[in-house]
Amino acid sequence: MKIMRFLDSHGKIRYGQPVDKRTATLIEGDLFTAPTLTQHTAVVAKRLAPVDPPNVFAIGLNYRKHAEESNMPLPSAPVIFIKATTTVTAVNMPIILPTSAPDEVDYECELAIVIAKEAKSVSEDQAIDYVLGYTCANDVSARDCQIKHDVQWARAKSFDTFCPLGPVIVTPDEIDGDNCPIRTILNGQVLQDSNTNDLIFNCRQLVSYLSHQFTLLPGTVILSGTPSGVGFARKPPVYMKDGDEVTIEIDGIGQLTNPVVLEKAGPV
Amino acid sequence: MKIMRFLDSHGKIRYGQPVDKRTATLIEGDLFTAPTLTQHTAVVAKRLAPVDPPNVFAIGLNYRKHAEESNMPLPSAPVIFIKATTTVTAVNMPIILPTSAPDEVDYECELAIVIAKEAKSVSEDQAIDYVLGYTCANDVSARDCQIKHDVQWARAKSFDTFCPLGPVIVTPDEIDGDNCPIRTILNGQVLQDSNTNDLIFNCRQLVSYLSHQFTLLPGTVILSGTPSGVGFARKPPVYMKDGDEVTIEIDGIGQLTNPVVLEKAGPV
Repeated sequence: MKIMRFLDSHGKIRYGQPVDKRTATLIEGDLFTAPTLTQHTAVVAKRLAPVDPPNVFAIGLNYRKHAEESNMPLPSAPVIFIKATTTVTAVNMPIILPTSAPDEVDYECELAIVIAKEAKSVSEDQAIDYVLGYTCANDVSARDCQIKHDVQWARAKSFDTFCPLGPVIVTPDEIDGDNCPIRTILNGQVLQDSNTNDLIFNCRQLVSYLSHQFTLLPGTVILSGTPSGVGFARKPPVYMKDGDEVTIEIDGIGQLTNPVVLEKAGPV
Repeated sequence: MKIMRFLDSHGKIRYGQPVDKRTATLIEGDLFTAPTLTQHTAVVAKRLAPVDPPNVFAIGLNYRKHAEESNMPLPSAPVIFIKATTTVTAVNMPIILPTSAPDEVDYECELAIVIAKEAKSVSEDQAIDYVLGYTCANDVSARDCQIKHDVQWARAKSFDTFCPLGPVIVTPDEIDGDNCPIRTILNGQVLQDSNTNDLIFNCRQLVSYLSHQFTLLPGTVILSGTPSGVGFARKPPVYMKDGDEVTIEIDGIGQLTNPVVLEKAGPV
């Protein structure tokens, strides 16, 4: 099943499987326990992020080549950080370059794992039973905050709109999260091009490990890490700027495209 | 107004002002925009954390003496980190020493600021208009993860139950967040004893600064930092162990007491 979340023509939040750009077959029942594809369709008035997560956990340095380009040693356990839930945004919505750090905003293509049912201390063998599915994520990062200014990565990773998700969640019966071609395309140019089979810690290992640290509630999102080719490691560096268009593409899931815009000065 | 959140005898979530240990005067209307004290009372069947936050932002090194005991330079801007929302727990509920890091779990008394209405880029002068009130927090921290094992503080600060909040939120008309005596009492012994007037960045500065980085949604919690006297900086170090009882006390708010228990082995 491919699950999108959207507002219908009455402004009601709906889940559905896309038929075309304007129509979806409705999914009913609890999304996390018994999503059921109906015979009914609805007009897609506005796309939303496919999930509204209670927490967004993210993993750093989880592809060998990216750890190398970041000059970081290979981790012996997943490197965990947290993104604020206010980072989440939908396909086609703007990534906003924040007033306080607009100059070194970087893209990171990632496979996002969406949790279906509460997971605490689950084994690697059981882990995929707790996964609703996979979607594309852009783990947007303000490198000046991350590398030069801040003690922790929290701010660099958590400006508003810094976690586009979508376009759909694809359930594990339709896709193998551990063998997904993944790429970033910035203004038509492919800048990251890899496969999740290069992950140091794969999907079942991440779900199991994280569930041994934290209770993973339904809807929790795990960003699994980004491959090599990020902007700050290029020579010269490539950062996103006002007017750019960035796409995260995962074969079998689709394209997550977002325009990039500079934040307008606030009211104060 | 003093706001508690609880389950009534029908298992319904309610807000109220405490009358005594078993009874509260009900608060109705939207908690974040128009909380109204009614004439009605209800039985308090179970205390909950006073808020269910969409995000928990926390500030490190925000008291001069604590920055010194941590051997960290004084920050020029607030040091931000994020705690998972699954850390939040209520008064009297156990703080669980997690199986993966039970040995160096430390207490940190903090004044928590609770946001009332969506705040983005608000000035210091306006900041308190966006504050619902203040409560006690314990920013529980696994120091082995924080200092020895992990790249980021995320895991150390985000094990389940690592953010007790309560017992009540006190609105700004009844308390000055920038002048609150605050202490930690572990098994009857006072181990932290300070006043929020020692904060490097005070409440209005924190709300304003954070709102210039992130949209602060209603219910967002900001932990304002901890004073000196934490366990890991003591000689010898003091960590919380199975059977301990820890209290965070802020004059004008009350006592947030939690038992400490070792996690039982999981089902796997």
